[in-house]
Amino acid sequence: MGQNLTLIIPVLGALGLVYTFWKTAWVGKQEQGTDRMKSIAAAISEGAMAFLKAEYKVLAIFVLAVSILLAFSAMGEANSSPLVGVSFIVGACCSALAGYLGMKVATQANVRTTNAARTSLGKALEVAFAGGSVMGMAVVGLGVLGLGALFLIYSNMGWDTVKVITVITGFSFGASSIALFARVGGGIYTKAADVGADLVGKVEAGIPEDHPLNPATIADNVGDNVGDVAGMGADLFESYVGSIVGTMVLGAAFIGLTEFSGDLRFGGLNAVLLPMLLAGVGILTSIIGTFFVRVKEGGNPQSALNWGVNGSSIIMVVLSYFIIKWMLPESWSYQDMLSAEAHTLTANGVFIATLIGLVAGLAIGFITEYYTGTDKKPVMNIVRQSGTGSATNIIAGLATGFISTMWPTLVLAAAIMGAYHFGGIYGIAIAAVGMLSNTGIQLAVDAYGPISDNSGGIAEMSNLPKEVRERTDKLDAVGNTTAAIGKGFAIGSAALTALAFFASFIEVYNRTHPDNVLTSINLAAPDVMAGLFVGSMIPLLFSALAMLAVGAAAMDMIKEVRRQFSDIPALKAALEVMRRNDGKDMNTWTSQDQKTFNDADGKAEYGKCVEISTKAAIRKMVLPGLIAVIVPVAVGKLGGAAMLGGLLAGVTVTGVLMAIFQANAGGAWDNAKKMFEAGVEIDGKMYYKGSDPHKAAVVGDTVGDPFKDTSGPSLNILMKLMSVVALVIAPFL
Amino acid sequence: MGQNLTLIIPVLGALGLVYTFWKTAWVGKQEQGTDRMKSIAAAISEGAMAFLKAEYKVLAIFVLAVSILLAFSAMGEANSSPLVGVSFIVGACCSALAGYLGMKVATQANVRTTNAARTSLGKALEVAFAGGSVMGMAVVGLGVLGLGALFLIYSNMGWDTVKVITVITGFSFGASSIALFARVGGGIYTKAADVGADLVGKVEAGIPEDHPLNPATIADNVGDNVGDVAGMGADLFESYVGSIVGTMVLGAAFIGLTEFSGDLRFGGLNAVLLPMLLAGVGILTSIIGTFFVRVKEGGNPQSALNWGVNGSSIIMVVLSYFIIKWMLPESWSYQDMLSAEAHTLTANGVFIATLIGLVAGLAIGFITEYYTGTDKKPVMNIVRQSGTGSATNIIAGLATGFISTMWPTLVLAAAIMGAYHFGGIYGIAIAAVGMLSNTGIQLAVDAYGPISDNSGGIAEMSNLPKEVRERTDKLDAVGNTTAAIGKGFAIGSAALTALAFFASFIEVYNRTHPDNVLTSINLAAPDVMAGLFVGSMIPLLFSALAMLAVGAAAMDMIKEVRRQFSDIPALKAALEVMRRNDGKDMNTWTSQDQKTFNDADGKAEYGKCVEISTKAAIRKMVLPGLIAVIVPVAVGKLGGAAMLGGLLAGVTVTGVLMAIFQANAGGAWDNAKKMFEAGVEIDGKMYYKGSDPHKAAVVGDTVGDPFKDTSGPSLNILMKLMSVVALVIAPFL
Repeated sequence: MGQNLTLIIPVLGALGLVYTFWKTAWVGKQEQGTDRMKSIAAAISEGAMAFLKAEYKVLAIFVLAVSILLAFSAMGEANSSPLVGVSFIVGACCSALAGYLGMKVATQANVRTTNAARTSLGKALEVAFAGGSVMGMAVVGLGVLGLGALFLIYSNMGWDTVKVITVITGFSFGASSIALFARVGGGIYTKAADVGADLVGKVEAGIPEDHPLNPATIADNVGDNVGDVAGMGADLFESYVGSIVGTMVLGAAFIGLTEFSGDLRFGGLNAVLLPMLLAGVGILTSIIGTFFVRVKEGGNPQSALNWGVNGSSIIMVVLSYFIIKWMLPESWSYQDMLSAEAHTLTANGVFIATLIGLVAGLAIGFITEYYTGTDKKPVMNIVRQSGTGSATNIIAGLATGFISTMWPTLVLAAAIMGAYHFGGIYGIAIAAVGMLSNTGIQLAVDAYGPISDNSGGIAEMSNLPKEVRERTDKLDAVGNTTAAIGKGFAIGSAALTALAFFASFIEVYNRTHPDNVLTSINLAAPDVMAGLFVGSMIPLLFSALAMLAVGAAAMDMIKEVRRQFSDIPALKAALEVMRRNDGKDMNTWTSQDQKTFNDADGKAEYGKCVEISTKAAIRKMVLPGLIAVIVPVAVGKLGGAAMLGGLLAGVTVTGVLMAIFQANAGGAWDNAKKMFEAGVEIDGKMYYKGSDPHKAAVVGDTVGDPFKDTSGPSLNILMKLMSVVALVIAPFL
Repeated sequence: MGQNLTLIIPVLGALGLVYTFWKTAWVGKQEQGTDRMKSIAAAISEGAMAFLKAEYKVLAIFVLAVSILLAFSAMGEANSSPLVGVSFIVGACCSALAGYLGMKVATQANVRTTNAARTSLGKALEVAFAGGSVMGMAVVGLGVLGLGALFLIYSNMGWDTVKVITVITGFSFGASSIALFARVGGGIYTKAADVGADLVGKVEAGIPEDHPLNPATIADNVGDNVGDVAGMGADLFESYVGSIVGTMVLGAAFIGLTEFSGDLRFGGLNAVLLPMLLAGVGILTSIIGTFFVRVKEGGNPQSALNWGVNGSSIIMVVLSYFIIKWMLPESWSYQDMLSAEAHTLTANGVFIATLIGLVAGLAIGFITEYYTGTDKKPVMNIVRQSGTGSATNIIAGLATGFISTMWPTLVLAAAIMGAYHFGGIYGIAIAAVGMLSNTGIQLAVDAYGPISDNSGGIAEMSNLPKEVRERTDKLDAVGNTTAAIGKGFAIGSAALTALAFFASFIEVYNRTHPDNVLTSINLAAPDVMAGLFVGSMIPLLFSALAMLAVGAAAMDMIKEVRRQFSDIPALKAALEVMRRNDGKDMNTWTSQDQKTFNDADGKAEYGKCVEISTKAAIRKMVLPGLIAVIVPVAVGKLGGAAMLGGLLAGVTVTGVLMAIFQANAGGAWDNAKKMFEAGVEIDGKMYYKGSDPHKAAVVGDTVGDPFKDTSGPSLNILMKLMSVVALVIAPFL
C-alpha cells in the first residue's frame, strides 16, 4: 500500500494537469471579438510573454549556478546527495511552468471574457473563471506531480527515507527562489507601469484610465498579468510545496517508532506520505468545486464563487478526517527537542491541528476584510481623515496598517500553541497543509480577478459600448471577500510553513550533526540575539529595495511618456484637442478636432514603455533576491546554526508583521479611494470623484500600491525562502 | 572604602543638583524684554504648567495603585520587600521632578533667549544653553542621587546585596512608567497642536507660522515644551537609570566570587558599585564640559557645543579606564547561563565593552545623520521624488526609513556580540552605561534645541525686528549633528539596556526560583515563539495608537480653530482683510484694513486650544501606557517566564527597528522640506517655498511629525519599560 500510495500521489497531480489542459483548450475555443480587440490582446500577450522570457533567461543562469553549488556542497555528504541540485532545478522549472501556463491562458481569457461580456455576465464569468482555474490547477497539479515523482524516484535509489526527504527539500528551495524573483520582478513591473500611467496619463494629461492615447497603457495591462497572475502563481506554488515538504521532514522523525514501523500498510512512512496525499485529494475536491461555479442569467456571481470555494472546503475537511484517521496510528509517543518529557500524539490531535490551521486562516481573512473593507470603521476613518488632506489620509492609513497586525498576530500565536498542543511540531506544519489543501480552487478565484480587470481594460481600449465595461466591472468587484480570505490563508500559511521549516532545519541539523546537537536556540545567547536583530531587519531592507525600485522605474516611465507626448506630433495634437475641449462630450467637438483625436489612435509607442518596465523589473529584482539566498548561507557559515536560527525567527516574525501591515494599509487606502469614487458622506456633506478629499485619497492609494502589490506579498515568500535555504544547507554547516 | 563609596555616589548626584539650582537662578536673573514678550511667555509657561499639573494628577493615581500592588505582591517574598513599592514611588517622583525642573527653566529661558538675541548671538546661545544644562544636570543629578540614596538606605537594612538590588529595580520601573506617559502624552500634545495650527492656520487661512492670529499658536509653543523638553527629560532619565540598574543586577552575580570577596576595598560589591560611580563621575565631567561652551562675538556656536560634548567625552573615557581598572579585579572566571564553560572576564575587557558601547552609539548617530541630513543622497532622493507629487515623496520617505535600519542593526548586532565577548552579559549592560555616562551635557545640548525654537516663536509673536528671528533661527539650526548623535545614543542605549534587563530578568528569576531554573529561552518552543510574535506586534500597536490619537486630537484642534475663525468677529474680519490684500506687504494696505487687522491681535482664545491638546493628550496616553505595563504581567502570569522572555525579545527587536524607521523617515522628510525652503535644484530647475514639489514635501513632513516626535521616541521607552516590568515581577512569577 505504501508503494501503491507513492504511485497514486503523482497520478493525482497529473489529474490536475489534465484538467488544466482541458480548460486551456476550452478557453482557446472561445471567440475573441473584433479585430481591434484581437490586436490589443495580442499586444498585451506579447508584452507579457516577452517579460517572462527575459525574466526566465536571467533566472536560468541563477538556477544553474545555485544547482551546481548545491550539488557540489552535497558531494560526499552521507545524508545528502548531489541530486539535491536536480531537485532544485525541477522545483524551479515547475514553478516557472506554473507561472507560464497560468499567464498564457490568462492573456487568452482576458479578451474572450471581454467578448463574452458583450452578450452576458454569466458567460463572461464562466470564461474568466475558466482562465483562473487553469492557473489554480496548474499550480497544484505541478506541485503534487513534481514532489510525488521525485519521491517515487528517490525512494527507489536505495536511500533511507530521511535522505530521500533531505534531497527533496531542494525542490522547495527551487520553487521558493523562482517565486521570490517572480513576485518582486512582477511587482516592480506592474507598479512602475501603473504609477507611471496614472501620474502622467491620468493626472497630468487628463486621459481616462486604459485610454489608447496613453503610451503606458499596454504596459499597465501587461503588468496585471505578470504581477498578479504569474507572480501570484509562483507565490502560491511555493507556499503549497513548502508546507508539504516541511511536514514531510517533520513526519520523518516518526519513522522507526513502534506505532509506525508496525503499520505495514505504509512501510512506516505514514506521516511522510500524509501531507502529499492530503494535497493530492485536495486537487480532486478543488476540481469538484469548480463545477459548483455556475451562474444563471440574473444570478449572483459572488454566491457562485462562494459555492465553489466553500463546497470544496467542506468536502475537504470531511475527507481529511478520514484520511488522517486511516493513515496515522491511534496514538503514539514522541519526544521532541522542546520538552523534557515525551508528548503523546494522536490521529485525532493531528486532525484538530489541521482544523486549527483552517480556522486561523479564516479568522485572519475576516480580520483582513474588516480592516480593508469599504464601509467598515477603519476605512471610514481614512475617508474622514482625507477631508483634511493627504497628510492625514496617510497617517490614518499607516496607523490602520499598524493596528491591523494585532488580531492576526494573536490568532497566529494561539494557532501555534494550539497546533503544537494537539499535534506537536508536526501539528504546526500540518496546520499549514490544512490551510492550503484547497489552493486549487482558492487560486482559481484569485486569478480570476486580474483576468476580469484586464478584460475591462480591453473593453475600454477597444471603444466597446459602455455596458460591456459595466459588466466587466461587476465581475471585477465580485470576489473581494474571497480574495481577502485568500490573503489571510497566504499570510497564515506562510508563517506556519516558515516555522515548520525552522523546526525542520533544527531537525535536519541535528540528524546530520549527531556530535554537536542543538538542544536549544537560546534567545538569551548573544549570537542568537544578534541573529534575531539582523533577521528582523531583512524584511524592512527588502521592502525598501522593492519600493525604491518601483519609485525609480516609475520615474523612467514618466519621463518616457512625457517624451512621447512632446515628440510624437499626432499624440501632441490629440492632447491639445482634448485640453481645448476640456471635459466636453466628444460628440460636441468640431469634426476637425474629432479627426485629429482619432488620428492619434495607435500612434503611441507602447513597446517602449513595455521595455522600460521589463528592463527595470529584471534589473531590480536581482539584489533583493540574492540577499534572501545569500544572507542565511553567510550567517549559517560564519555565525553557526544557533545564530542562523535567530535570524530565521527574526525574518519570520517581522516578515509576518510587515506583510500584514503593508497588505492592509494598501487595501484600506485602495478602498477609501473607491468609496469616494462611489460617493461618500463626511460630516453631513457628500464627496465624489474629483473632490479635494478624493484627491487626498488617491495619494494614499498610490502609496499603498507598492505596499500591497510589490513588497508586501514578496515578504510571504521571503520568510519561507530564507528558512528553506537554511533547511537545505543544514547538512553542510 | 565600599562604605565610603556608597556615600560618595549620592554626593556626586547632589552636586549635579547644586549646579541645576545655580543655573536656574542665573537664568531667572536675565532680562525678559518687552511687556508683550512677557505676556506671551507667561501664556506659554502657564499652558505648559497646566498640562504638567493635569498629567501628574492622573499619573499620581497610577503610581499609587501600582506601588500598592507591588508592595502587596512583594509581601512575604524572601528575595523582595514591600519597599519595592517605595522604590517605585521615588523613581516616579524623581522622573517627574526632572521633567518639571527642566520645563520650568525652559519656559523661563525661552523668552530670555529671545531678549538676549535682540543684542547678540553669543549671549542668546549662553542663555539657551544654560536652560538646557539645567535639564541635563537635573536628570543626571536626580538619577544618581535617587539611586545612590536608596542603595545606601537599603544596604543598612541588614539585607543581602541581591535583595537590595532587587528592591531597587522598582526605582527604574517608576522612572520608566512616568517616562512613557510623559513621552506619549507630550508627543500627542505637541503634534496635535502643531498639525492643527499648520493645517488650518498656515494652509487654510494662510497665516504665517507662530502668528498671534492663529488660536493654536500658543498651544503649539506649549507643545514644544511638554513634548521636547519634559518628555525628553523623563525619557533620558529612564534610559540613564535603566542602564545603571541593569548593570547593577548583573554585577550582583559576581558577589561571592573569590576575586571579588577577597577585595576588601568594596566588600565584594565592585561590579555593583561601578555603574553608579561611572555615572557619578560623568556628572562631574558633564559640568566641566559646560564650561567649554563659550562663543566669542562672531564665533561659531556649533563648534562651541561640539567642544563641550567632545571635551567631556574624552575626559570621561580616560577616567573610565582608571576607574574600571581600580574597581575591578585583573581577571576573574564566571559561568553564565549561556555557555557550558566558564568565561574569563577582565577589567580590560569590561573597559573595552564600554568603548564598544560608545563607538556603537557614535556610529548609529553618524548613520542617522547620513540618512536624515540635508544634501545627503537619501534626502536628495526624497527631494527629487517630490517633483512627481506627494505620493512619490511619501514612498521615498518610507523606503528611506526602512533602509536606514540596516546599518544600525548590523552595528547593534556587532556591539552585542563584541561586548559579550569582552565583558560577558555584564559587558552588554556596561556598554549602555558607557554610552550614557555623558548624558548630562548631551541632554543639555538636546534641550537647548526646543528652547531656541520657542524663542523664535516668541520673537515672531512679539513683532520683534527681523534680525532677532534670524538670530534665533541660527541658534535653532545649530546642533543638528549633535542631536543626531544624541538620537543614536538614545536608540543604541535603549536596545542594550533592554537586553541588560532581559538578562537580568532571567538572572533574578533563576535566583528566586532555584527549583525551576530557566536554562534557556528556546526559540524553537511554541510558547516562546508565540511570545515573540505577540511582543513584536506591540510596537506596531503602540505606534498606531499614538498616531490615531494625534490624528483625532488634531481634528478636534482643527474644528476649534475653524470655529474661532467663524465665531469671533475680530478674527473673522482680520482674516478677510488678509485675504483681500492677498500676499501684499502690510504697509501698502489701507489704514482701515491695518486697523481691523491690528484690532484682532490677542482676540484669539488661545486657552481653548491649550485645553483641547491637554485633554486629548491626557486621555489618549492612558491606553498605550497601560498596555506596556499590563501585557508583560499578563503574559508572565499566564504563559510563564519563557513566554515572557520571547515577548521581551520581540518587543526589543521590533521596537528598535520601528524606532529607527520612524525617527529617520520623519527626520528625512523634515529636511527634504527644509531644502525646498532654502531653494533646491531638481533636474536643472530651481524650486522654492510654495512650489508644487515643496507642497508635496510638506505632506511628507506632516506625516513624519508623529513618527519622529510621538510614536518613534516612545518606543525607546516602551522596550525598556516592558523589560523592567518583567524584571520587577520576576520574583513573583
